[in-house]
Amino acid sequence: MHNFIFRNPVELIFGKGQISKLSEKIAPGTKVMMTFGGGSIFKNGIYDQVKAALKGVEVIEFGGIEANPDYSTLMKAVEICKKEKVDMLLAVGGGSIIDGTKFIAAGTKYEGDPWEFMLDSSITSEAIPFGTVLTLPATASEMNCGAVISRRETNEKFAFHNPNCFPQFSILDPTAIYSLPKRQISNGIVDTYAHTLEQYLTTDIDTKVMDRFAEGLLRTLVEIAPDLLKDERSYDVCANFMITATMGLNGFIAMGVDEDWATHMIGHELTALHGLDHGVTLAIVHPGVMRVMKEEKRAKLLKYAERVWDIKEGTEDERIEAAVVKTEEFYRSVGMKIKLSEHNIGEETINTIVKRFRDRKWNVGEHGIVTPEKTEMILRSVL
Amino acid sequence: MHNFIFRNPVELIFGKGQISKLSEKIAPGTKVMMTFGGGSIFKNGIYDQVKAALKGVEVIEFGGIEANPDYSTLMKAVEICKKEKVDMLLAVGGGSIIDGTKFIAAGTKYEGDPWEFMLDSSITSEAIPFGTVLTLPATASEMNCGAVISRRETNEKFAFHNPNCFPQFSILDPTAIYSLPKRQISNGIVDTYAHTLEQYLTTDIDTKVMDRFAEGLLRTLVEIAPDLLKDERSYDVCANFMITATMGLNGFIAMGVDEDWATHMIGHELTALHGLDHGVTLAIVHPGVMRVMKEEKRAKLLKYAERVWDIKEGTEDERIEAAVVKTEEFYRSVGMKIKLSEHNIGEETINTIVKRFRDRKWNVGEHGIVTPEKTEMILRSVL
Repeated sequence: MHNFIFRNPVELIFGKGQISKLSEKIAPGTKVMMTFGGGSIFKNGIYDQVKAALKGVEVIEFGGIEANPDYSTLMKAVEICKKEKVDMLLAVGGGSIIDGTKFIAAGTKYEGDPWEFMLDSSITSEAIPFGTVLTLPATASEMNCGAVISRRETNEKFAFHNPNCFPQFSILDPTAIYSLPKRQISNGIVDTYAHTLEQYLTTDIDTKVMDRFAEGLLRTLVEIAPDLLKDERSYDVCANFMITATMGLNGFIAMGVDEDWATHMIGHELTALHGLDHGVTLAIVHPGVMRVMKEEKRAKLLKYAERVWDIKEGTEDERIEAAVVKTEEFYRSVGMKIKLSEHNIGEETINTIVKRFRDRKWNVGEHGIVTPEKTEMILRSVL
Repeated sequence: MHNFIFRNPVELIFGKGQISKLSEKIAPGTKVMMTFGGGSIFKNGIYDQVKAALKGVEVIEFGGIEANPDYSTLMKAVEICKKEKVDMLLAVGGGSIIDGTKFIAAGTKYEGDPWEFMLDSSITSEAIPFGTVLTLPATASEMNCGAVISRRETNEKFAFHNPNCFPQFSILDPTAIYSLPKRQISNGIVDTYAHTLEQYLTTDIDTKVMDRFAEGLLRTLVEIAPDLLKDERSYDVCANFMITATMGLNGFIAMGVDEDWATHMIGHELTALHGLDHGVTLAIVHPGVMRVMKEEKRAKLLKYAERVWDIKEGTEDERIEAAVVKTEEFYRSVGMKIKLSEHNIGEETINTIVKRFRDRKWNVGEHGIVTPEKTEMILRSVL
């Protein structure tokens, strides 16, 4: 087990009716920028609930933050926050809104161009405080200090982490996802599954508790996915999904383990180049990573096969292959197309991505084992 | 799943050599009271490591805090803290030292007699900040805001929780437990196992993730116990034990679940009346709770049998009984005597405890299902 430092100060306020607790969290007289997306919160009643709880609070609304939030959109919010001397932000939405809000929170306090901290992970900035009301479980941004920001003008997509960018509180009301379209549920399931794998399917360095926690999240997702994709979702299945997504990337399963993230790094390029949903890219890339990096991940792949999929028969290689096939079947079962060609993506994109990784000298994955050559093999294996 | 609020701001600093990080956490010039127990830290080198890291810090040493820390001892520390205007506390020890330090931290800021907040859980007090260096994994006090304090003059032992009593940081160096006596390791294993059961073996209200996390902790304990009780312990087994003990009672597995705690409430009386180690009392009481409360806990007992002990054959009642027997065998395997009579405790003590519970009108366990009558049945079943 590696040495580690864990700290996650986010207050999680979970359950039916909890949006009303906003009135306890944001004092009247506070100047708040409320950030949101394309307007689904107007249809599902969340907007009304939030506004009702914010009586007496001065609210500046900043809507229109897109999926894969864009630098240029967010910079408009940064300007407003600086000009209006906003005290606090309140993100109402999913991972894109919350990620964007972290960028706004830090960007407002940063003296230079905030894109600088996207390019240099050693730069952390002060940030104005913010809370969240989660409407789409997937990224766990509601309980971590990371964010992924896109810049469409340059076809780029990068992540940053800043210990000052933990939400002060996050409100998770499972009823908020009753009306979520299936596509977003599917993306959330795959995103959470992939997050968990990125922290689990690496080197086996005897991290027993974290392994069990990760396996618990994976099994839960497999168990609840069919009910989540029904036309009507029960409260409990929504609640279990929300908590699973949050636990998938809030640091709980990362203590002392090796982490991978090659699938995300490669997937981000597919989103940047073709606009694919984030979850979709992960469903494509992950099986490729499992097969191509089989030797390096052998011990954990065997554990994964046995403990998540109950695969106990056959040679080691057979058990590993069976587990990869189970993973592919699972992704397909939630509605994903898992080959590049199914998305009309071919050789040209592979070459572009591999060239980018070579130019950036990106060896990704745990201990940098995914070289640009391996990245090429991974992408070709999922063509 | 129940609504819940989760917040745990403790910074966990985990791994070999991390005690030296104290120098980053406590600035020179700070006036610190260092609290510890009977002096084992002088023999295992922890004292020297702590003092080396605290160069330039004004340290008042307060040793001699006993197992099951006593009100009268702790009040002496409270007086010193008030008189000397101590800025911060540093607990170096196990659960008793850390619990005692929480009492001192809150007691110093409390205007009345601190025993008042032991008797009335609605009273919370400000507290002076404190950190911990853990030397004995068991109670998870290093990552929660609760404490259990004894008052020997009245044979009482009570718990309090205070959101201002989270440690600011806790340093967990697994090498600190290389030299720990087997009796303390045994107590720690049972304590952690029992904490987890108290939050798991209740009502099945579809808390899938928390169930999996709890089962992961239980399985890990069963897996590592034999290696922990060998004459020489490896780094990894110590590391896995430390993290398991911390996760057992830091709120992570309590989100949205029903909690029991009847075993602890009954066990505290056995400690108060006979001075039994806390872990010993839990090993006695828990199997009794499982058998007597079988109907109320049926669904979870069946899950426990299958997922922790791989018991899949037989009728429901047979599977439950087999799981209780496995639990008893596990407690015996780590060196516990699990019957009252093996500790020369008999009818008289049962009558005393039941009378106390009746007098206090204590219906304990989830939803108060463990009435004084059930408490009597539980104690008689483990005679």
